Amino acid sequence: MRVGVLTGGGDCPGLNAVIRAAVIAGAQRYGYEFVGFRDGWKGVLEGLTTPLDPARVRPILAVGGTILGSSRTNPLGMEDGIERIRAQMERLGVDALLAIGGEDTLGVATALHEAGVKVVGAPKTIDNDLSATDATFGFDTAVQTAVDACDRLHTTGASHHRLMIVEVMGRHAGWIALHTGMAAGAHVTLLPEEPVDLDHVAATVAEVLERGEAPLAVVSEGAHVGGEESTAHTERDAFGHVQLGGAGERLENELKARIPGLSSRVTVLGHLLRGGTPSAGDRILGTRSGLSAITAVAEGRFGTMAALRGTDVVQVPLSEATGVLKTVPGSRVAETSDLSW
Amino acid sequence: MRVGVLTGGGDCPGLNAVIRAAVIAGAQRYGYEFVGFRDGWKGVLEGLTTPLDPARVRPILAVGGTILGSSRTNPLGMEDGIERIRAQMERLGVDALLAIGGEDTLGVATALHEAGVKVVGAPKTIDNDLSATDATFGFDTAVQTAVDACDRLHTTGASHHRLMIVEVMGRHAGWIALHTGMAAGAHVTLLPEEPVDLDHVAATVAEVLERGEAPLAVVSEGAHVGGEESTAHTERDAFGHVQLGGAGERLENELKARIPGLSSRVTVLGHLLRGGTPSAGDRILGTRSGLSAITAVAEGRFGTMAALRGTDVVQVPLSEATGVLKTVPGSRVAETSDLSW
Amino acid sequence: MRVGVLTGGGDCPGLNAVIRAAVIAGAQRYGYEFVGFRDGWKGVLEGLTTPLDPARVRPILAVGGTILGSSRTNPLGMEDGIERIRAQMERLGVDALLAIGGEDTLGVATALHEAGVKVVGAPKTIDNDLSATDATFGFDTAVQTAVDACDRLHTTGASHHRLMIVEVMGRHAGWIALHTGMAAGAHVTLLPEEPVDLDHVAATVAEVLERGEAPLAVVSEGAHVGGEESTAHTERDAFGHVQLGGAGERLENELKARIPGLSSRVTVLGHLLRGGTPSAGDRILGTRSGLSAITAVAEGRFGTMAALRGTDVVQVPLSEATGVLKTVPGSRVAETSDLSW
Amino acid sequence: MRVGVLTGGGDCPGLNAVIRAAVIAGAQRYGYEFVGFRDGWKGVLEGLTTPLDPARVRPILAVGGTILGSSRTNPLGMEDGIERIRAQMERLGVDALLAIGGEDTLGVATALHEAGVKVVGAPKTIDNDLSATDATFGFDTAVQTAVDACDRLHTTGASHHRLMIVEVMGRHAGWIALHTGMAAGAHVTLLPEEPVDLDHVAATVAEVLERGEAPLAVVSEGAHVGGEESTAHTERDAFGHVQLGGAGERLENELKARIPGLSSRVTVLGHLLRGGTPSAGDRILGTRSGLSAITAVAEGRFGTMAALRGTDVVQVPLSEATGVLKTVPGSRVAETSDLSW
Repeated sequence: MRVGVLTGGGDCPGLNAVIRAAVIAGAQRYGYEFVGFRDGWKGVLEGLTTPLDPARVRPILAVGGTILGSSRTNPLGMEDGIERIRAQMERLGVDALLAIGGEDTLGVATALHEAGVKVVGAPKTIDNDLSATDATFGFDTAVQTAVDACDRLHTTGASHHRLMIVEVMGRHAGWIALHTGMAAGAHVTLLPEEPVDLDHVAATVAEVLERGEAPLAVVSEGAHVGGEESTAHTERDAFGHVQLGGAGERLENELKARIPGLSSRVTVLGHLLRGGTPSAGDRILGTRSGLSAITAVAEGRFGTMAALRGTDVVQVPLSEATGVLKTVPGSRVAETSDLSW
Repeated sequence: MRVGVLTGGGDCPGLNAVIRAAVIAGAQRYGYEFVGFRDGWKGVLEGLTTPLDPARVRPILAVGGTILGSSRTNPLGMEDGIERIRAQMERLGVDALLAIGGEDTLGVATALHEAGVKVVGAPKTIDNDLSATDATFGFDTAVQTAVDACDRLHTTGASHHRLMIVEVMGRHAGWIALHTGMAAGAHVTLLPEEPVDLDHVAATVAEVLERGEAPLAVVSEGAHVGGEESTAHTERDAFGHVQLGGAGERLENELKARIPGLSSRVTVLGHLLRGGTPSAGDRILGTRSGLSAITAVAEGRFGTMAALRGTDVVQVPLSEATGVLKTVPGSRVAETSDLSW
Repeated sequence: MRVGVLTGGGDCPGLNAVIRAAVIAGAQRYGYEFVGFRDGWKGVLEGLTTPLDPARVRPILAVGGTILGSSRTNPLGMEDGIERIRAQMERLGVDALLAIGGEDTLGVATALHEAGVKVVGAPKTIDNDLSATDATFGFDTAVQTAVDACDRLHTTGASHHRLMIVEVMGRHAGWIALHTGMAAGAHVTLLPEEPVDLDHVAATVAEVLERGEAPLAVVSEGAHVGGEESTAHTERDAFGHVQLGGAGERLENELKARIPGLSSRVTVLGHLLRGGTPSAGDRILGTRSGLSAITAVAEGRFGTMAALRGTDVVQVPLSEATGVLKTVPGSRVAETSDLSW
Repeated sequence: MRVGVLTGGGDCPGLNAVIRAAVIAGAQRYGYEFVGFRDGWKGVLEGLTTPLDPARVRPILAVGGTILGSSRTNPLGMEDGIERIRAQMERLGVDALLAIGGEDTLGVATALHEAGVKVVGAPKTIDNDLSATDATFGFDTAVQTAVDACDRLHTTGASHHRLMIVEVMGRHAGWIALHTGMAAGAHVTLLPEEPVDLDHVAATVAEVLERGEAPLAVVSEGAHVGGEESTAHTERDAFGHVQLGGAGERLENELKARIPGLSSRVTVLGHLLRGGTPSAGDRILGTRSGLSAITAVAEGRFGTMAALRGTDVVQVPLSEATGVLKTVPGSRVAETSDLSW
């Protein structure tokens, strides 16, 4: 058996742990050979490969990103994408695919499976918004990195009696903001899932300042601040001017309009959350996902992907991953939303 | 309602998150007052208290250990322990207790509940060996700290073609070793739950050296190395001499006897794993546990403790926590035990 | 002797180490009493104080920011600033001042000294741009934090064959960018001290991409990108539109115009570099500065400030600190500027 | 010109930064070729080499240890060591050597220089005990790692009113203990350079406990505790029993004998301090040392080594490095030794 491996979509910490575990277990337990496809589906479509064996993957457990490279190329957007993939697999003697990625990547995997291609998946998203699994690797590292940043920013805020606003990734799901806010002790946490009452936010900020402390606000990039959903990148208007930017900056403007003399700073963590050595938790989840996926290959359970359920990593149908986005439920918001930390 | 809070047993990261969340939510949602008991059950028995209100607990989220202090005093070992606790609670006007601790502490809480005292619990153990919950706070931080140490040790091992042995906590349950070994890419992981085949371990170490890499071994203090269970502390024999020490040192001796010219170093991480600022994950689990416990007080669900089940924190009967030790199941060992990383 | 302590200007890691060392050594060695002034010169002018003794300062060594608060209030901008300070000192029975701050704060201290007020200083700037000392505390932590961020960003850049641009503090002096760039292995480092050849920068970026690696650019906020000096904050034009922002964003625009299809991301670290627990090096430099300053008080060497010279911390005239800005010399730029890492 | 590079003695963070900078600058500025010798002088004596060029060294800046491997093999202990080195250099076409190491390695380099071999050096020791330079790379990382550990241990000590003893490297020079103790806020710091007054130490520990805090003691492995100099490794007596171990354990015994009921824990950091990714400061010092050394080769200034003097990295005669050990001067001890933190 010769297994092709690819990583698609935005990278995140833990991808290399999946690759490493699958290759080592596949080679040692089942005698499989592996080939790496470069830059996601692009590499499969174009037959761009890189060698992949235990010696290559042993040292990559603690390395951020993906040694295979990634891209957002989506074969489903092409007329003959599936056929081209099948042809390249045949040409390269690849019997099965291990596709590691988020909703887009796994959507392609689902389509391939339905077209009869042997494929298993491992879900990846720092946003933690895949329905089929309790948690995705990359998320833990992202939250830890954001919390470390908040811890740093909070002390300088306190020295200057200043509101610190921290904008984190999350366009449609606010998991990173929710967990960052809880772990960093934020006084305000704004998610895409909930309407924002700016007057209430301003009152909270004012109360914290009143008692001599420094307010901390954690804001998803997709939070509804300023009446419209924010976008990750600033837009330029017809005159080439930059529109008012992300959710953090818009929040600052709204609060300055409501609190006279407010001192504040906005920090956009952005891609900081994607990179770097994975946390212990993400290395474990990545490793177990890789082991589960390669076992599924060996047992012929194609069309499935690795999923965390409680403390177990199991294989679930690929189609489960690509249905409804897993957003933050109201019960999680309600855990703390009435509290003035 | 006036709630007394105590932390018992060995400390771990996340205790302060529980205290903070329970006090802030209790005060703001239910108008409760709080009193802190110092040094676990000792403080309850002797009526040693410290003030506890939102202003006191706001800054402690990221602080390691417990602001209440801890001890291993166990009222169940006294004839009138339960009665003395009841008397102190009456004297101090304390209506209910929030007991945060491990098996011993929660065992006392169970006995108190059975004696009619209003008590709820929050489970704590860095060893992750409580049956009633998917995970305990403190464990994530302990593993991360151990993995950081392994990452450091691995590079110096590689420079010197040297086996690095890392001994971690875990007398009866090997969860810390299991997760540390998986996340650090250890070639050998020895747990209290499994017999140790020293010849096989030696063969693995030799193979890794043979291919020009540096072997890494992670060993629970309770691993069965050298024919007998190790103990956390070195013992002195009848002559006052120190016996051969922990599991790490015993492993080194056994391997040196089997591999001529082996260069190796042993590092005992010990209490490093107990201390320091909690990881984001442990801050979240601690906070959610505190929120769940104080809600249980408000709803009169005494005799319960906070437990993680999947992604939910729920209250389960206290008695569940103090039954069987949750050891590493064979299925988790088998995930990787045949692989030569 | 009763000594007033204040911290002025932007905060930085290590301020609390100075306060702690000065108070403990002053109290124990010389029997001094201390009073803390809140929020820099503002607190001195208005007589806003906070208690300061060994018990208060013992736990603050690892705490970021300043427990005294800070502000940019400058008494030299008032007609009677010096007199008001003198009056408040008399009213509060303060015999001497320990002023911890940057060029502005030490400028006030110099003026006070010339006016006969007993004052010593400790220099502070994360920018490392004070002439009188080899290094200032805060700088080491800032560089370490920036390098940690670059390490994270570099792995996600590599996964996506993407240029990562990191903008760091430094309007007039590029020390943070210089050291961050060197320690992070940046391919491009742009400082305020040097003209920027954008075509050369583009060629370097293209070359790194060509060899299959991910380019990293570290840019001072004051680097000369796009023909004009950048400012820390984005400006709004007459129509309320945001002008093209910081140096990082301007660099991205310039490079996109020169390299077709360039993928890139800009991260502005900003206030992340100011906050958080100080590095070991900054705790040591802060502690030694506090010890040196309080010794100067005891020995009557007023009008001096603590300075690092080689491995010694000595007192130098305050006036030395507030002369010429210490910018990056051409020799340091030349160390690496011709190399294509 | 073909330059051979080797790293000798115990490894430390920053070695790879030296190699990387020397190779890239040597190749790009001067057109040099490089060859790596494996495992220090052993590799030179036996002609064991590994390829070394810019592509190989680019990714190693943040990697701990040394990609060349190291050993303690000393050619000066052989009759014909110098001649064998000369012969291997001729055989391999190596014109000059860059020797990176501590006192032993640089001692060989000195002898080679005196025998007419072209050699330059870069000093390395985590102990910071080389006379010719203000600081050696590796030291900063070692201290930071030790301080991080102390920060962790201190919180668990505080929860249990327990003395935490931390033993760090340093047999003959106490720099690591001195800086760790100062940066971690230790109440007791014991160095090899000073006699130890155990009664005074016990009084300090008791005083800290008395005021309700947790004492922290940082001890060099070479500190004079228990009447005799400690050794890094525990010894076995004639009966095969382990003798009382390191300085930390001996200190614990002495204090338990003096303070009834004292609770304490000893942590031996040992090789943790040698490994892992180098701090920003050590990456910079390593890089600048490599640049300085290769420039010296280009300018024919053989027999010199890179040294930090204030903020400059300069070349000094190799012989300066191998004279007197740089121990902690009494003035540095006196800075804080009378203070009860």
